[in-house]
Amino acid sequence: MADQAAARLAGINVGAPAYPIPSGDFGLIGLAVMGQNLILNMADHGFTVVAFNRTVSKVDRFLANEAKGAVIRAPFRDGMLTLSLGKSIIGAHSIQDLCSKLKKPRRIMLLVMAGKPVDDFIESLLPFVEQGDIIIDGGNSHFPDSNRRAKYLAEKGIRFVGTGVSGGEEGARYGPSLMPGGNEEAWPYIKDIFQSIAARSDGEPCCDWVGDEGSGHYVKMVHNGIEYGDMQLICEAYDIMKRGLGMPASEIGDVFAKWNTGVLDSFLIEITRDVLHFNDDDGTPLVEKILDKAGQKGTGKWTAINALDLGMPVTLIGEAVFARCLSAIKDERVRASTILGGPSPSFTGDRQVFIDNLEQALYASKIISYAQGFMLIQNAAKEYRWKLNKPSIALMWRGGCIIRSVFLKDITSAYRKNSDLENLLFDDFFNKAIHHAQNGWRDVVSKGALWGIPTPAFSTALSFYDGYRTRGLPANLLQAQRDYFGAHTFRIKPEYASDNFPEGKDIHVNWTGRGGNVSASSYVA
Amino acid sequence: MADQAAARLAGINVGAPAYPIPSGDFGLIGLAVMGQNLILNMADHGFTVVAFNRTVSKVDRFLANEAKGAVIRAPFRDGMLTLSLGKSIIGAHSIQDLCSKLKKPRRIMLLVMAGKPVDDFIESLLPFVEQGDIIIDGGNSHFPDSNRRAKYLAEKGIRFVGTGVSGGEEGARYGPSLMPGGNEEAWPYIKDIFQSIAARSDGEPCCDWVGDEGSGHYVKMVHNGIEYGDMQLICEAYDIMKRGLGMPASEIGDVFAKWNTGVLDSFLIEITRDVLHFNDDDGTPLVEKILDKAGQKGTGKWTAINALDLGMPVTLIGEAVFARCLSAIKDERVRASTILGGPSPSFTGDRQVFIDNLEQALYASKIISYAQGFMLIQNAAKEYRWKLNKPSIALMWRGGCIIRSVFLKDITSAYRKNSDLENLLFDDFFNKAIHHAQNGWRDVVSKGALWGIPTPAFSTALSFYDGYRTRGLPANLLQAQRDYFGAHTFRIKPEYASDNFPEGKDIHVNWTGRGGNVSASSYVA
Repeated sequence: MADQAAARLAGINVGAPAYPIPSGDFGLIGLAVMGQNLILNMADHGFTVVAFNRTVSKVDRFLANEAKGAVIRAPFRDGMLTLSLGKSIIGAHSIQDLCSKLKKPRRIMLLVMAGKPVDDFIESLLPFVEQGDIIIDGGNSHFPDSNRRAKYLAEKGIRFVGTGVSGGEEGARYGPSLMPGGNEEAWPYIKDIFQSIAARSDGEPCCDWVGDEGSGHYVKMVHNGIEYGDMQLICEAYDIMKRGLGMPASEIGDVFAKWNTGVLDSFLIEITRDVLHFNDDDGTPLVEKILDKAGQKGTGKWTAINALDLGMPVTLIGEAVFARCLSAIKDERVRASTILGGPSPSFTGDRQVFIDNLEQALYASKIISYAQGFMLIQNAAKEYRWKLNKPSIALMWRGGCIIRSVFLKDITSAYRKNSDLENLLFDDFFNKAIHHAQNGWRDVVSKGALWGIPTPAFSTALSFYDGYRTRGLPANLLQAQRDYFGAHTFRIKPEYASDNFPEGKDIHVNWTGRGGNVSASSYVA
Repeated sequence: MADQAAARLAGINVGAPAYPIPSGDFGLIGLAVMGQNLILNMADHGFTVVAFNRTVSKVDRFLANEAKGAVIRAPFRDGMLTLSLGKSIIGAHSIQDLCSKLKKPRRIMLLVMAGKPVDDFIESLLPFVEQGDIIIDGGNSHFPDSNRRAKYLAEKGIRFVGTGVSGGEEGARYGPSLMPGGNEEAWPYIKDIFQSIAARSDGEPCCDWVGDEGSGHYVKMVHNGIEYGDMQLICEAYDIMKRGLGMPASEIGDVFAKWNTGVLDSFLIEITRDVLHFNDDDGTPLVEKILDKAGQKGTGKWTAINALDLGMPVTLIGEAVFARCLSAIKDERVRASTILGGPSPSFTGDRQVFIDNLEQALYASKIISYAQGFMLIQNAAKEYRWKLNKPSIALMWRGGCIIRSVFLKDITSAYRKNSDLENLLFDDFFNKAIHHAQNGWRDVVSKGALWGIPTPAFSTALSFYDGYRTRGLPANLLQAQRDYFGAHTFRIKPEYASDNFPEGKDIHVNWTGRGGNVSASSYVA
């Protein structure tokens, strides 16, 4: 009766059978590695989490193992005292059970395979949630799906959030980077828990509201694309040291250890150091035994495709994705290696100077990659009409996630100084950095070409830099060709405008004296 | 009455009002530049073409002008004799009119804007065509649309053909490359007219049946992607000569003229020569006055996206598309050019030797681009279950189209010698060619990097070559990283397989000693 009175005061309908008052702060569906670790992280921060999984036995196994509280037994008086430091994790055996155990508005996060499973769980949740409840998709969903789901659920009065989650299992457990976007009404209800469990960088949580619709997943997608790029750059540096300088894994590991104390200080450099120092039982580096066929989950590919769709030259991520594709056709490469010849690398000169150049090549290429990534995000905001906060995006990536680095602190500063910064390369700090780096960078790219060691990411970054800073690219010739063979028309450079060739007009020239007068610009029936 | 009797003999239903017997061999909808020229081409070859256009006044204008036959007037006896060498082109003023004027099975080709207009015309044709009639889409349709239309029309008993048409206005007029695919039952009815109007190369028509569904448009799409690549390579060579060697347009034109007599002999090199030699009224080269913002119609982008989707490293087309994107942000580049510094090219050495190297760089990069293109087509055939005839694809590109070249003769030979050729680079001829070219190629790429002149396509081609012929790429490190931070697992190189690390199994190593035992391969709820 006292419970019922309290419930009535709390506004809970007690006409229905007297259920226990729900105590769950947060519901989480999907107990794979990311889901489990996020739950443990939330529990550590004092939130009561209700856990559910499609294969229900996994719920019980999780509760009996990873989610079990620590039990301290100590001698006390005549016997033993059992102190149970129980974690506040509750199991649910059905969707209905999950929903009944959650406080309102319910906050339910899905951490399931992207695609149909997300839609399926949303449908199975709908009968048990109500107006104002919040459904959060924390999986690797493609942003157009999140756009669609945000609209669909808004029509039903359900608040949808699509959130990027990065940091792998470690991050999920001890502080991920979280990039939530969608229905902004949900933000006040999830801000506390999200910012509590997120990584922190210089005291600030690596989580903030990203923007409308699928923008959270969009920013996570670009994050992953950049991650592809960073990893490819590291691989190229490793390859140059291994095949160009003939260094063993442990020495290369030492170089990465040193780089991790400088401008490249970052999670990926740190784990590269560890990987290169990790020996198998026989005392040799495990990395050299690993098959060189890269896998991918598709988010890098999505970024490259989106860049093509938006017409933004995000070349470094494109090359990084293609490099994985090339690595994947290993059998064909093995056959090719017996047929197709090339030079043998022969290094002469000061090895340390060259290794310093390599550090600069990696750094400069990385600056280009992030500049390209932010160009893409900036353009997406225009294209999709999202309001995005650039400094907070860099901040969210500063800690917790795979691409976390000291470097992102400098990007955060750049956008805090000037949130309308047209391009990262226009910021003083990065302008100076790339200027200082370019000699070494050029040395590495030219040596890679001469030695026969592929540097697709270093090279494309350099070509982008040199193209970007070029006032007159050879696209004038290309436009002339297009007009020659297809009457596609061209425009005139303003400084050459005349009565014959007015500025801003589509011009067709009869290059051959043959052919018709129909210009291709009227190629419409 | 005689007409009716003849009609009855011909099996035409004369119970209906006595229409004139249809005399049209071929119907064509869409009188923009390509449509007009194709009609004139067909008429030249003795086919009677019925022309229609949505804006009907264009039909009459076309008949009164371009389609008007030559009229010869000569003195004869007391007066003048008028000989009308009339072209066999008939106008239609409605879709119904068009259909009523065509022999059966009707052959109707659309040359309208890709997308909705094609669907709209198909719908407006449906009431007036009958079982067995053939609808041909000759526009730049995206191949998934052609897949869909082939299925949709097959259900209605209408035979759909999606055909690539290349060659620009000149090609359409005097011999295009035609790449038809779709419902193979249609082929016997269109083969004669298609092969008659197509370009010829060494006596063979540059038109053959491509394969199922949208494969004709697919092959045309890849053709266009390759065209993007070829054009970008030419632009890079031009830029290197212009900014690296300081050569004026006319001299560069002379180099292209010379190249056009060697291995690079091709339509695009030929028109580049002409463009560079084309002077404005003031006697200076027009090309230098053309705005360096490249346009695009999207087919290059489609190719790059398809390559990403199929996981094939078609890097050169990717870079060519991105290079156009970078050229398009001219205003930003102009601002960047005042802020971002770089080296000044300074050439020393034998200029002719370097120009010869440049020729080899262009040639080798082109070999890579075509090898990548055929890798993509080969993979698409697998993915979409199309039967494609590789030698005939190269043959169709040998003449008529934008990428026509002597080079494609060598590709045709390669695939005729061995239609199961795994990769173009495995063919003796191309293997030797690229081997011979590589020193010059490496010289150009390294100089571009040192001089600050962007060579995205030359560079990516070289990186692909060096990656493709590498047995052990650094993707082993990448797989270790992925397993480290995301438990994504890796596989072991067969030569290092052991009980601990069995071959062909997904392996997860606990790199840190922390974290759970859940591998990401089980990341399913």
